[in-house]
Formats: sequence, structure tokens, C-alpha cells
Amino acid sequence: MPVPGPGYSITVRLEAPPSASAAGDLTSAIGRAGGVITAFDVVESHADRIVVDITCNSLSTDHADDITSVLRTLSGVSVRKISDRTFLVHLGGKIEVNSKVALANRDDLSRAYTPGVARVCTAIAENPDDARRLTVKRNTVAVLTDGSAVLGLGNIGPEAALPVMEGKAALFKKFSGVNAWPVCLDTQDTEELIRAAELIAPVYGGINLEDIAAPRCFEIEARLRSKLDIPVFHDDQHGTAIVVLGALRNALRVVNKDISDCRIVVCGVGAAGSAIIRLLRHKQPRDVIAVDIDGIVHQDRGDTDDNLRSIAGSTNGEGRTGTLSDAVDGADVFIGVSAPNTLGTEDVAAMSTDAIVFALANPDPEIDPLEAQKHATVVATGRSDHPNQINNVLAFPGFFRGLLDAHAHDITDDMMIAASNAIADVVDGNDRVNASFIVPSVFDSTVAPAVADAVRRAAASEQSPEGSPALSGSAASAGLGEDLEF
Amino acid sequence: MPVPGPGYSITVRLEAPPSASAAGDLTSAIGRAGGVITAFDVVESHADRIVVDITCNSLSTDHADDITSVLRTLSGVSVRKISDRTFLVHLGGKIEVNSKVALANRDDLSRAYTPGVARVCTAIAENPDDARRLTVKRNTVAVLTDGSAVLGLGNIGPEAALPVMEGKAALFKKFSGVNAWPVCLDTQDTEELIRAAELIAPVYGGINLEDIAAPRCFEIEARLRSKLDIPVFHDDQHGTAIVVLGALRNALRVVNKDISDCRIVVCGVGAAGSAIIRLLRHKQPRDVIAVDIDGIVHQDRGDTDDNLRSIAGSTNGEGRTGTLSDAVDGADVFIGVSAPNTLGTEDVAAMSTDAIVFALANPDPEIDPLEAQKHATVVATGRSDHPNQINNVLAFPGFFRGLLDAHAHDITDDMMIAASNAIADVVDGNDRVNASFIVPSVFDSTVAPAVADAVRRAAASEQSPEGSPALSGSAASAGLGEDLEF
Repeated sequence: MPVPGPGYSITVRLEAPPSASAAGDLTSAIGRAGGVITAFDVVESHADRIVVDITCNSLSTDHADDITSVLRTLSGVSVRKISDRTFLVHLGGKIEVNSKVALANRDDLSRAYTPGVARVCTAIAENPDDARRLTVKRNTVAVLTDGSAVLGLGNIGPEAALPVMEGKAALFKKFSGVNAWPVCLDTQDTEELIRAAELIAPVYGGINLEDIAAPRCFEIEARLRSKLDIPVFHDDQHGTAIVVLGALRNALRVVNKDISDCRIVVCGVGAAGSAIIRLLRHKQPRDVIAVDIDGIVHQDRGDTDDNLRSIAGSTNGEGRTGTLSDAVDGADVFIGVSAPNTLGTEDVAAMSTDAIVFALANPDPEIDPLEAQKHATVVATGRSDHPNQINNVLAFPGFFRGLLDAHAHDITDDMMIAASNAIADVVDGNDRVNASFIVPSVFDSTVAPAVADAVRRAAASEQSPEGSPALSGSAASAGLGEDLEF
Repeated sequence: MPVPGPGYSITVRLEAPPSASAAGDLTSAIGRAGGVITAFDVVESHADRIVVDITCNSLSTDHADDITSVLRTLSGVSVRKISDRTFLVHLGGKIEVNSKVALANRDDLSRAYTPGVARVCTAIAENPDDARRLTVKRNTVAVLTDGSAVLGLGNIGPEAALPVMEGKAALFKKFSGVNAWPVCLDTQDTEELIRAAELIAPVYGGINLEDIAAPRCFEIEARLRSKLDIPVFHDDQHGTAIVVLGALRNALRVVNKDISDCRIVVCGVGAAGSAIIRLLRHKQPRDVIAVDIDGIVHQDRGDTDDNLRSIAGSTNGEGRTGTLSDAVDGADVFIGVSAPNTLGTEDVAAMSTDAIVFALANPDPEIDPLEAQKHATVVATGRSDHPNQINNVLAFPGFFRGLLDAHAHDITDDMMIAASNAIADVVDGNDRVNASFIVPSVFDSTVAPAVADAVRRAAASEQSPEGSPALSGSAASAGLGEDLEF
């Protein structure tokens, strides 16, 4: 059952009588209406009245309306204003652009702007790769979307997608110090999207594709990877796949199974499911069965979509057919990246002993985790109110930190496997893994550095000998470091 | 004669004998080589040697090399490393993206990211104009270039232009709190540039076109103005015209002339010259004579360029022909936005009494200001080492602050005239105007607020009655202000 949360938190400013009982009347009225009070502040006190700000969590906007309606009915109480804290947080945007350099006097200006800047421009014109050292490109990622598949909201367009992209940018900075900037493009034409990404690329050291609908996202990612000399990451694909593989490694340790003995069902073959299937190959499971809305994917189904044909060709070695229930019967692992309530309790009961269920559909999973736990040994979801939250924020900040530090031009499967192992190691390395703790907390500040380090190492082992060495973040501010001679 | 400046400042780390005379030997050697020492720091001291960082200004990279060569010849001295302070300032870029919101715990995440953010997205999807309140669009400008006409460097491309755009972004933030983000596009095709600007527009509340070559810049600006619902400003045109008109108003006050009696010569009809000519019309001078590389622009010259034909049609009421010298003969004002050393001392001598000369070519003006002063009463340049520096930074930060605050959709000539008067008033209003002080200092912190206020007022007087009122910056952080109800 859902509980009132901070995503629907309101602050009500009201006038009430100055009597001793007034506060109690207010708080009990909110309690009866199902609100959870998180703050009670008297902002004015007069002989005849007090003015109070009451902040409380609710279930939904309708529930918030109900709460304020109840307050309005109280004798002597007058509601002045209702503010929604989620909207307040968003006023004027969640990110900002700041100067890193002093501009206090003429000397500062002469170095950071004209005339000094001209020498830096000339250096980059002569050696374009210097842009990765001498400009914001060194440490900046584009968070690029067309707004066609935003959260569970669908195709809401570029303006409405912007708050999500800003939130993502804020997470990039918080967890790994990467500058991320929203690029919300006003087109949903594949060719225009690709061309626009090429045109804006000079400023960025990497591109994070975000919330672009499948199957368009596959073509956009593949073509940009071949066209651009900066890494292109599609978080809905690769971020999810990295975290899922890390979580799966630890879940298998809990149940003491080897992946080479496991049959794994992946339900949903959109961006996330397809990427999970592709990355799983490197782990050599006994078999992977992909399932979509039409049932088990197999080679005789007559699919015409390139992505589905590719999946049919690389999964389902035993040529199974049938429904999701047929697929999970006897399976060791269920990974759902599809839609709410697609997996039944009896389906989980029919899985092998010590079953693993990742029900990752957002905001509502394929099966209620409490139901799944009746028959599965390890259960994970995308939700923050259950153990084992599979959240991409474990992957993308550290992954791009590593790519930028390595001056990487491409993303490889080895990098992604290394990142997934790094995430698993944060839990596993300390021998802390158990059925309720297969992935670290999203607030674990050791995750992003560990992922970044894994990606840097993977990049270094792939780099050709003439690859340019990376400047470390600290060297960039050290004044007279090894790399700072010009 | 040029003097060593901070744009060419180096720091030399060297080892020297620990003798009492060593420091003196070092500093006098640098002095003999023409360097100007700004810092002398002992970083290590040993029985047999000291390690010293000497920072000094030089004239050029060649001069910096000469200075270090001299140091290498000193007995017992060994140069370890040479760092260029201008390059150090640029390492890793001059701007960064920061989060404005706390992300310390799960409640913060629930409001700024999922699930709370979904309600904000939905609100914008239902009312797209809310993006101007609830996202970074509220306070953000794109600094857009193709790198085709950067400073005096010419067509150096988008990567090499990035340090200039970052510097501009830093100035935007410092002087008016506006977020500005570099958009360096990897194309010089007019149609592609226009389309790319349209595609990236959802994130921005305005576009500042920068360093795009003429005549392409005119078409790009005009077409974007008609296509986009956010203001499009071309700094090389409008920024320059605003500052020039403000400076001219004060220069005319110094010489006690009315503009309706003045003949004004504008030398150079690129971006800046064309915009100055257009904006000057509102001031109704007696006549304007435009001059380009082929001499005086007139209607019988057979020009085919649209911009030149338009200028020919609106200037030169007396139908003059001939050279620049013919144009300035007897003129009251010379405004040069062309090329170095195009105006002779004898040309200035032939102007009317109390002549005004704005020699704005960068980095070298149309005439040495010391030469011009022999015959002109008021002289201005684009240089920081002479009085009366005409610098666009007086205009663009405050101009966009006003546009964003007003939620403006367009830029009008009235706004530009208002901005130019605001700049003039900062000097004139305090009765401080004189021949060496016709524009405020670029570091005068009262300029941008005055310009912003003028633009807001001009916008308000043009806005239709149903125009949405602006959120002020302070209201955005006030918690429970009038505009914050949802």
C-alpha cells in the first residue's frame, strides 16, 4: 500500500485562533485526512490569531486537495496559500552555469577573455584534441533527448522533458563531478536527431542519450557511435544493463549458483531488455529467453524488426515457444523491464528453487515484491521503498567520469562489464552480500569512484600506445603539474 | 608602444644557487630581457640550491621564449618548467554546471528527480510556457557560434571558438547572473545552422549569436527571429550598436552638438557597421555615410548584396561618392568598425571642428588614438589601454537579464535604444561626462542592472495586456511568494 511521500509534499500557510488547542486541532485534522506532517512553523503571532506554515506529505495531488479542504472546514481557520514543495524546488530550474575563473580585474579578463584567450583558440585550431584539455569539453557530457519516452509519461516533448534532464545533470555533478547539460531537441525525426547530435558535439566529451523511444534509439545510438569521436552512451540501455549485471552477480552468489547453469528470462525487449540481453552474452549463461508482448521470442516468429531478429538469433537455444509463463517455468532468473503486473505469483512458484526475480518496471513492477518473495529467494525492483533498488544512478555518473578522464573515444562491452563488476564489488568485496543487499545504496559515495576507476582501467588496457595520457582532476588545479607545460 | 601584459604571463620554475646574489641576478636578467616580474616565490630551499617560481608578464610568446633563454644562460641556474598562466586558467574549461538543489537524501531525490519530477513534467506538457518558470530556461541563454569569425582570428571552427564562448558565458554570469551555455555548431551551412538553432531552442530563454561571419549572420538572425518564440540577439551587431549609440550620445554632449546637425561616417558595413547604421536612424542624424573597402556606399554603385543595397537606400542623402577621405571631409563623427590603419591623421584634420572619432577595429584601431587626438576632441577605441573603451560587455549581460526577466519573445529597436540610453546615463546622469569618460568602466557593477531595468521597462510598455508577469529572481527563492502557488 502506498504511503504519503515527499514527492507530493505541500506547505499550507493558514491563520488560526491563538488558542492552546488550535495546533492540536490542525494536526489531528491532517492526520485524519491521511497526511503526514513533516514541519509545523509559526510565522506570525498576534493577539487574535497565529499564522502557521504546515508542511505535510500526501499521496497525490488529489489527496493534497482533500487535506486542504479538511483544513478549510475547521472553525476559525483560514487557508491563505498552498505551496507545492516539488514545484518550489523546480522554480527557475535545478542547475546553473558558473564561472570557474576569477573576473575581478583587468588582468583576469586579459587571461580568461581577450586578448589572452586568442592564444588558446589558436592552440586548439592547430591541435583540435587540445579542446579536451583547455575547454569545458574536458569534463562535460550532453544529456540528449527528444522527449519521446520520458519516465512513464511517454512522448511529452522536449520542453516537458527538461526537468528530468536537469535532474540527471544534477546527479552527474553530485556523484562524480561531471558537468552535464540538457540538450532537448525539438524533433523526433531520426535523421534530424542524429545530425543535431553531430552538430552540437564539439562542446562535449561524451553524449548520454536519454528517454528516446525504441526502436529509434537503437539506430540513433549505433549511427552516432560510428560518426562521432566521443563516446555515446544510452542510459536506458547501457546504464540499466550495467546495474542489472552487477546485481545479478551478487544475487547468484546469494543463491550459490553459477551463471553457466542458469536459464534467464528477460521480459521486455525495448531499450533496457535488449541491452541486458546483449551484455549477458559475455557472462555465458546456459540460456537466455527473451519475452515480449507476443510471448517468447524465437526465430520462426516472423519478426521483421532488426532488433528482434538479432535477439531471436542469439537467444533461446532450445527453441522454446509460448507465453511468459512457459518461459519462466523452471527458469533460474527473471529480469523484467516491461510493464506492471505481467508476472503472476504462480509463475514465480513454477521457477527453479532459489529463484531470482528482478521486477524493474517503473513505477509499478511486474509483480508486487511482497508476492514475489513468497517463492523467490532474491527479489529486486526499481523502487526506493523496497530493498535492492536497481537504479541507473549507480552507473552513469562514475561511468562518464571514467570515460572523460581516459579521453575515451568509444564505449566497449569490456568497460561496461568492468563497471558492473565494480558495482557488485562494493557490496561483495566487503563480504556483506545477502538477499536484501545485492546492490549498494544510491547514496553510497564509494560507488562512482569505483566505477570510474574500473572504466579508466578498461580504457587504458584497450588504448593504443600513442593514446594521449589523461589529465587527472587534481592536476588540472595543481598549478605546476606534469601536464601543464605549454 | 605595447607593454608586457597579463595575457602573456608565464611562471618559470627554476633551480638557482642559494647565494645572496642569486635572486638579484634572476630579476635583473628578466628586467634586461624586457619582462615585468609580478611574483617571486621560493618553493623549496636546500643547503646547495633554492627552487623558485618567478611569474612575469611578457609581450608575446616569442618574448616569453627570449626571457627563458636568458635565464638558461645564467651560471648555476637550471630551468625546470615553464607554465603559461593564460593556459593554466583554461585547463579543464572556464565554466561548470552546478546543481542548485540539495540531493543529500531520499526526500530531496523524490522532489528533484523521480517520482516528484513527473508532476512538473506533466505541468509543462499541459502548459509549455511553464518551462519559463519551472526549468533552467527561465534564466539561460545559448551563446551560439559556428566559429567562422572569431575575434581577429577568422574562421577557426567550433572547437577552437569554444574558449571565447566560455569566456562570454563567464561574463554573463558575473555581470548579470544569467546562465549562458556555449553552443558551438559543427557546420557553416546557413540552413543547417538555422535548423540546429531551432532544434536546441527548447532549453533556452534566448539566443546570443556570436562570431558568425557576415553576410551569413544577417540571414541567420532574421530567419531565427521569425521562427523562434525566444529573443535572438547578435552581439557583434546589436551589442556593438547599443554601446556605440550610448557612447555617441555622451560624446555629442561633450562637444555640445545636436545629432540632427551631424554628418556621421560609418566605416565598415559588416555585422557591427550595419547594425549601427540601422539603430542610428532612430536618432535622426543629419546624414550617415557608409564606407566599405570600395569607398562610399551609394545607390548607383551596382551592389547586389541585399545588406549593401538596403544601406545604400537609407544613407547618403546627398548622394556622395568617393573614398573614405572624401566621406570624412567635414564630417562630425567617424565610427570605424573595419580594419587597422584605414584612417589617416590628415583625414581627422579635415573633419569639422570638435570631431568625434570612434576607431573600434580590434585589436588594432583604424587610427592610433594618440594621432587622432591631435585633431579630434573625443576619441574612443575598443582597447583597454586607452580611455573610452567601447566594449560589448557593457550591453549583453544586462540586456539579456532584462529580456529573461520580462519573458520577452522578441527584441525591438526600442529596447536597444533604451539600453544605449541606460549605458549613457550611468556616466551622464552623475554629470561626470567628459572627453575621456563617455562610457562607464566594464567593471562598473551598476551598468548591467541599469540596462536590465531599461529593457524590462521597454518590454513591459510593448507587451500585450495578457502578457504573463515575470517572476523576479528574489521571488524564485523566497519560498512562499505571490507567484509560487500551483
